[in-house]
Amino acid sequence: MSETLTQMRQNVYHGNIELPKYKLVKFTWGNVSEINRDLGIVVIKPSGVDYEKLTPENMVVTDLEGNVLEGSFNPSSDLQTHLELYKAWPEIGGIVHTHSTEAVGWAQSGLDIPFLGTTHADYFHGPIPCTRSLTYNEVEDAYEKETGKVIVETFKERKLDPTSIPGVIVSNHGPFTWGKNASQAIYHSVVLEEVAKMNRYTKQINPCVENAPSYIMDKHYLRKHGTNAYYGQQ
Amino acid sequence: MSETLTQMRQNVYHGNIELPKYKLVKFTWGNVSEINRDLGIVVIKPSGVDYEKLTPENMVVTDLEGNVLEGSFNPSSDLQTHLELYKAWPEIGGIVHTHSTEAVGWAQSGLDIPFLGTTHADYFHGPIPCTRSLTYNEVEDAYEKETGKVIVETFKERKLDPTSIPGVIVSNHGPFTWGKNASQAIYHSVVLEEVAKMNRYTKQINPCVENAPSYIMDKHYLRKHGTNAYYGQQ
Amino acid sequence: MSETLTQMRQNVYHGNIELPKYKLVKFTWGNVSEINRDLGIVVIKPSGVDYEKLTPENMVVTDLEGNVLEGSFNPSSDLQTHLELYKAWPEIGGIVHTHSTEAVGWAQSGLDIPFLGTTHADYFHGPIPCTRSLTYNEVEDAYEKETGKVIVETFKERKLDPTSIPGVIVSNHGPFTWGKNASQAIYHSVVLEEVAKMNRYTKQINPCVENAPSYIMDKHYLRKHGTNAYYGQQ
Amino acid sequence: MSETLTQMRQNVYHGNIELPKYKLVKFTWGNVSEINRDLGIVVIKPSGVDYEKLTPENMVVTDLEGNVLEGSFNPSSDLQTHLELYKAWPEIGGIVHTHSTEAVGWAQSGLDIPFLGTTHADYFHGPIPCTRSLTYNEVEDAYEKETGKVIVETFKERKLDPTSIPGVIVSNHGPFTWGKNASQAIYHSVVLEEVAKMNRYTKQINPCVENAPSYIMDKHYLRKHGTNAYYGQQ
Repeated sequence: MSETLTQMRQNVYHGNIELPKYKLVKFTWGNVSEINRDLGIVVIKPSGVDYEKLTPENMVVTDLEGNVLEGSFNPSSDLQTHLELYKAWPEIGGIVHTHSTEAVGWAQSGLDIPFLGTTHADYFHGPIPCTRSLTYNEVEDAYEKETGKVIVETFKERKLDPTSIPGVIVSNHGPFTWGKNASQAIYHSVVLEEVAKMNRYTKQINPCVENAPSYIMDKHYLRKHGTNAYYGQQ
Repeated sequence: MSETLTQMRQNVYHGNIELPKYKLVKFTWGNVSEINRDLGIVVIKPSGVDYEKLTPENMVVTDLEGNVLEGSFNPSSDLQTHLELYKAWPEIGGIVHTHSTEAVGWAQSGLDIPFLGTTHADYFHGPIPCTRSLTYNEVEDAYEKETGKVIVETFKERKLDPTSIPGVIVSNHGPFTWGKNASQAIYHSVVLEEVAKMNRYTKQINPCVENAPSYIMDKHYLRKHGTNAYYGQQ
Repeated sequence: MSETLTQMRQNVYHGNIELPKYKLVKFTWGNVSEINRDLGIVVIKPSGVDYEKLTPENMVVTDLEGNVLEGSFNPSSDLQTHLELYKAWPEIGGIVHTHSTEAVGWAQSGLDIPFLGTTHADYFHGPIPCTRSLTYNEVEDAYEKETGKVIVETFKERKLDPTSIPGVIVSNHGPFTWGKNASQAIYHSVVLEEVAKMNRYTKQINPCVENAPSYIMDKHYLRKHGTNAYYGQQ
Repeated sequence: MSETLTQMRQNVYHGNIELPKYKLVKFTWGNVSEINRDLGIVVIKPSGVDYEKLTPENMVVTDLEGNVLEGSFNPSSDLQTHLELYKAWPEIGGIVHTHSTEAVGWAQSGLDIPFLGTTHADYFHGPIPCTRSLTYNEVEDAYEKETGKVIVETFKERKLDPTSIPGVIVSNHGPFTWGKNASQAIYHSVVLEEVAKMNRYTKQINPCVENAPSYIMDKHYLRKHGTNAYYGQQ
């Protein structure tokens, strides 16, 4: 376990310090985690610690209920949201949450990020959904856990596959993305932020723009993903 | 007093040079101050001196009426605004004024920065108010002092608490923020600028967007502030 | 051939690494190629390789049908688009494709980038056309090749000269630019992105703006191009 | 003369290389000049030379008719515009022309940059005017000279003082600014660009925004300029 854990601490540490590098977070406004399902552990950023003070060693190790197994710091206050997603979706291995500006712009609007072009389709096989707002009771009872639940509910009700749509925007809040590991989840955060910006530009230029044809979406997504993918060096 | 004052000069100096680092000011367009209420002194940036020429030593020390106690430079021309806020609100210890672009965009619009999401609520427990325009007489009589008065009036008339809403935009002018010290006031300036940008994006995407539910505002603010706060390592 | 090819590898390598420098691409989202018509060869970026791992040696050499002549990597998946343009337009020697944000903003809107000012006219002698969307059959049959064909069709149907309008935006996708070599094609990508931004700003300020007078377009274009050019040190 | 000229070459050289530093130009898209009225000479950037190749020595020296007195390079193609302004306005000593993005956004819109706030009023005592478009004959006959003439005409017809409004946007083209020397003209270019951005933001947030009260404009301008100025260390 020790070697695996050392590697997870490294991955999560590196993931967290990449967020300001990609200009996805200010101050401490983001968090990255990874799960090892065999060991039943999650590694996540500590809460409210400056990015320049993070080290692999001060990452927090918890079990799947959020009990701290290692580390003297409190885990990110968003831990319970991460755990809900890990529990609902066995296929994901890493999660990122930020308050990146463009994604928040859409999250505050309450609208899905529509499918308008190929940059989007290269990584998200459909519109990026915006959840409903949490209710008063959800916010009061167990805010972070309920945030995870409303994300899972959104995917379930719309019959979306979290593997082919690896991100969401939570209404009035901001984006969560995921992937097979922390590194891929961060990649998806960068894509989501860029697509949010492109689509804001397009809505300004042509407020009545309609969705792009779905066959372009299928083509671009499947060019990069699945058994017939031909992009890259696979 | 000498050691306290040396520390204040350091704080105010460092605060001022952080403003261009956070891209909140161009040229000399900003100022930071701190107060020590026991000593009855305020330390503030000198007026119109390039940021690269600032040193802890050329910060200006005044009393609460604005009389210069130490320093061969004129204090910032906005000193009287700072003094009005310090006199009205005993709970604040540091003030920042900038012409940061996004905040000015809202200040020129004459509109409050509305509550649309959790980034806002983490630091501001309500909309960020925009003051009324100053009258001709206010501008002519004692412009900077009256700017402070109109800020205080805004908070008083709307029954706002400057501790839980640590900033304002002055109509046709720009933002002022404050905090328990200079460092916290700067943090609030960064937040205000970022929220101003997020909300501009949201208004572009969805011009008819409505305020977010107030229970989300309460939750996020109280997650970070007050006796039941649980964010960070407290 | 060896010396020419070494130079082409250098040009294409340098061109590709300039794209992130000019902030025209994120990750691997762009590609540059050059052609030598005497040798019947094209050099292009390998597919999906990180920009920091590119070297002159791992550029891919193909013939005009896209058969790989040298290199152990797959060529850019957009190779067939480049080849269609090279075959249709003997006067061009280098091509660039990116997903640069402002250009994509227009491409997703389905609108031409209109002629509004002199920055545009210095390099593009007319509006920058937006192609039609590809049909289902075009996308399914030979997507990248058909993308090239629809670009050529756009220029043919509108009677545009690819020398004086050295770029296009493909509907729902993004920009392609070209020039006498890779270096000039990149220059045109930078111009296209900047003009896309300027025009977005103008459309926001004045949604009803009309095209600038065509005699200003002619003047500025011909000040820099053709036999009577007088800009620069020629 | 030799020492004065050496200083002018330095000033103009430094002015030109500051333009990319302030992100006001891409490639070679800008030019700075200075005049010495006693000597009857103007120093200006050479045309189309990359910024990294500029030196004080390759600045071009001309007389007030545009005849090259020293230098082996062609002067900036915009020289005749500069000369018209120098001849019409004896009070100015330096001129800057750029295609800075925000200012061009307004120039292409054909609208004045309105007076909305104090950042504007600190340096421009009134709206920043947008000229009319040049006519066909003006463009064909002597384009650059006529550009200067239309700027002078704009100030004359609207009874504006080029000292208190040290800049203009030329319709469908871009900004020119000036000052007592090159350094001040560049400062005014930075201000104009920033105010153009602030006002674009404000127009997005509140499309119906009205001008700010003129007494605020007077106060802020006169706080920094004229015999009763009290900003800074004068």
